[in-house]
Amino acid sequence: MSLDPGIHRRPVPLARAYRLLNHGPTVLVSTRHDGRDNVMAAAWNMPLDFDPPKVAVVIDRSTFTRRLIEASGRFALNVPPRALVDASFAAGSLGGATLDDKFAACALRSFDAQVLDLPLVEGCVAWLECEVIAEPHVQQAHDLFVARVVAAQADERVFSDGRWHFDASTDALRTLHHLGAGAFLASGEPVQARPVGPTPD
Amino acid sequence: MSLDPGIHRRPVPLARAYRLLNHGPTVLVSTRHDGRDNVMAAAWNMPLDFDPPKVAVVIDRSTFTRRLIEASGRFALNVPPRALVDASFAAGSLGGATLDDKFAACALRSFDAQVLDLPLVEGCVAWLECEVIAEPHVQQAHDLFVARVVAAQADERVFSDGRWHFDASTDALRTLHHLGAGAFLASGEPVQARPVGPTPD
Repeated sequence: MSLDPGIHRRPVPLARAYRLLNHGPTVLVSTRHDGRDNVMAAAWNMPLDFDPPKVAVVIDRSTFTRRLIEASGRFALNVPPRALVDASFAAGSLGGATLDDKFAACALRSFDAQVLDLPLVEGCVAWLECEVIAEPHVQQAHDLFVARVVAAQADERVFSDGRWHFDASTDALRTLHHLGAGAFLASGEPVQARPVGPTPD
Repeated sequence: MSLDPGIHRRPVPLARAYRLLNHGPTVLVSTRHDGRDNVMAAAWNMPLDFDPPKVAVVIDRSTFTRRLIEASGRFALNVPPRALVDASFAAGSLGGATLDDKFAACALRSFDAQVLDLPLVEGCVAWLECEVIAEPHVQQAHDLFVARVVAAQADERVFSDGRWHFDASTDALRTLHHLGAGAFLASGEPVQARPVGPTPD
């Protein structure tokens, strides 16, 4: 199965962008400032609003990513598929400050974002371009960053009409959910809720 | 398979409590104030720190849960398994303010928390008791609540030694990851990352 995002990448309406993160995938945070690109992994992320969409993500103060975000005011969240599990774990393990090219060190490649001056991660299945909403207190106290989503894209093979849809033919594109220490769960079977309560009879 | 948590419920060390939410499950937020208990669903939650553990969760200002949390300063996050999908969706759909007993309306039952004066949800697979850390600005601006975890428990059939572990015998206990509109994905197959980079030869 091709991981080339250029063929299958489609825009996602902003009102549906929260759906890309709603089920709790681990993401790769990509950044660019002053000629330096970087990427790291972040399991601690969530949607924060529907439309206009906002997100929250935890960016530890010790990371190079944090310095680039504080300097540039922007980042992208890239949703890696199972096929990128090794690279995603490397992105969460290696420090970026001392690497000339952390993308290469993680066996990742980038392409340019649509709206913001940012690198996006090739082979991911969703991409959200984000502008930081300054919240200095929670940034300092809790390493918590709030941002508005200004553009979103997804791989149409697994996300279309505002909904993720995985099957046996797209197993390699299932999203990753980090348990810890390099162990992940892939997104699994669909489960549809039925209404609870008295049924007419 | 029994869903009775009384038999299989075990304490989780606080330093491992973040692992209960690390893979992005939808949770049920349970609350108690002045004789009223309530429960709602929240897909938008994440760990915020390791030890002492903190969490973040989005609680819309229109919800009854929000009123109870602002009055009491506490809530619990309960991680529902697949077997509770209908009840979890009901908890996310029904308003609590006008219901005498929202637990009953959702076909849920509660038991008392260990440390805080809170109801926990029977049949869940993990439970985190949380005290709100007052962050008035982000509560108002973004409906975002930050809290410290003061006690945690999990069902030992699927979480032990700080790690989730699901297999065919515990399918009904897999966690739920909300896509939207009552459609969920169950937690899926394990995927273990291998180190990226040059290998010795």
